[in-house]
Amino acid sequence: MKINFVTLFPSFFDSILNESITKRAINSNKVEINIIDFRNYTNDKHKKVDDIIYGGGHGMLLKVEPIDRAIENLKGKKYLMSPQGTRFTQYKAKEMSLEKEITLICGHYEGFDDRVRNLVDEELSIGDYVLTGGEIPAMAIADSIIRLLPDVIKEISYINDSFQKNMLDYPQYTRPRVYKGMNVPEVLFSGNHKLIEQWRKSNALKRTKNRRPDLLKGVKNEK
Amino acid sequence: MKINFVTLFPSFFDSILNESITKRAINSNKVEINIIDFRNYTNDKHKKVDDIIYGGGHGMLLKVEPIDRAIENLKGKKYLMSPQGTRFTQYKAKEMSLEKEITLICGHYEGFDDRVRNLVDEELSIGDYVLTGGEIPAMAIADSIIRLLPDVIKEISYINDSFQKNMLDYPQYTRPRVYKGMNVPEVLFSGNHKLIEQWRKSNALKRTKNRRPDLLKGVKNEK
Repeated sequence: MKINFVTLFPSFFDSILNESITKRAINSNKVEINIIDFRNYTNDKHKKVDDIIYGGGHGMLLKVEPIDRAIENLKGKKYLMSPQGTRFTQYKAKEMSLEKEITLICGHYEGFDDRVRNLVDEELSIGDYVLTGGEIPAMAIADSIIRLLPDVIKEISYINDSFQKNMLDYPQYTRPRVYKGMNVPEVLFSGNHKLIEQWRKSNALKRTKNRRPDLLKGVKNEK
Repeated sequence: MKINFVTLFPSFFDSILNESITKRAINSNKVEINIIDFRNYTNDKHKKVDDIIYGGGHGMLLKVEPIDRAIENLKGKKYLMSPQGTRFTQYKAKEMSLEKEITLICGHYEGFDDRVRNLVDEELSIGDYVLTGGEIPAMAIADSIIRLLPDVIKEISYINDSFQKNMLDYPQYTRPRVYKGMNVPEVLFSGNHKLIEQWRKSNALKRTKNRRPDLLKGVKNEK
């Protein structure tokens, strides 16, 4: 799979490139990362990417032209990072992980000329909060997709993921058995696999009922 | 404001430290960033941060002790990054931006000993998708908070933010007036501020109705 990041801050993506799972996925050719600085696609000598807002308003807007020129020859679906977009979910991550090539376009600060929306297949939002740019959302989306690619992590690691089965995880414990008066539940030392399985299922259900009853109601991932 | 990141991957935060707005906020003492590697708080010579899962299961879990020792002397509220947590929203960002000191704890891979939940004030999720670690969520949360701190960006820039007013932004345009057959709406050149204001309001409303009717219904940010 190939992932194109279109951004004004290419070095922002160093973090994810150096992150252990992504790095391994790149080194084993499971994913190819391509970072495109759309400032290189301006056609004036000052490399101007933004301009004043028509009709008045504070701040500047990203121009449509440099972004268009940066992405026009790219293959595959193009996604614009925007708090106004469709909510990104695990369901969408799974769907996008089946693509051959995707492009994630990151705005910054004030916003962009509305005509940019006409250049993309979809606008995606990672949640109802405002960030200084689309770089963190693009990293989040790429990270969630890359870990779903075949052979990147063991399948057993993600079939138990929250949201994959519309149920939160059951509580898990490791050593020590007692820490500052907090005990690991006795059942986990019983050696009785059936009993442990029952305990886990009932605790996953209890936790989901308490914290995210919407998952059980079939609202599922708000596709 | 002071933000502590508790992580096994300190260098992951280089991106946000070098991001223009955060950098400026740090340089002007609006925010202090403190990155804590909890591997330094293990008390065995192999610096072991994870261990097998009691009761059986694939993979490893983060141990409670190093995290506890890393955060026990920190002041202010402690937040655990977890897909099982309360949904982080702009409302929460605003609330957290009023704190003096906060700590964002990042797990990685498989998860953590459930007793870690007892060490924190709240668990936060940035959305219904699974990531390889808590670092990207912690960056998202910090970024959304830092831009709300007084004098970090001009207030005028965020009072129009989506979600601040339960309404998506109106479409905005910049030069050129026509691009590949796509025109900027004529009204924006009318010079009639009242007319422009009306057009913007009605288009913000139209867009919100189309894309996010839930915002209008008072569901608001799913606090």
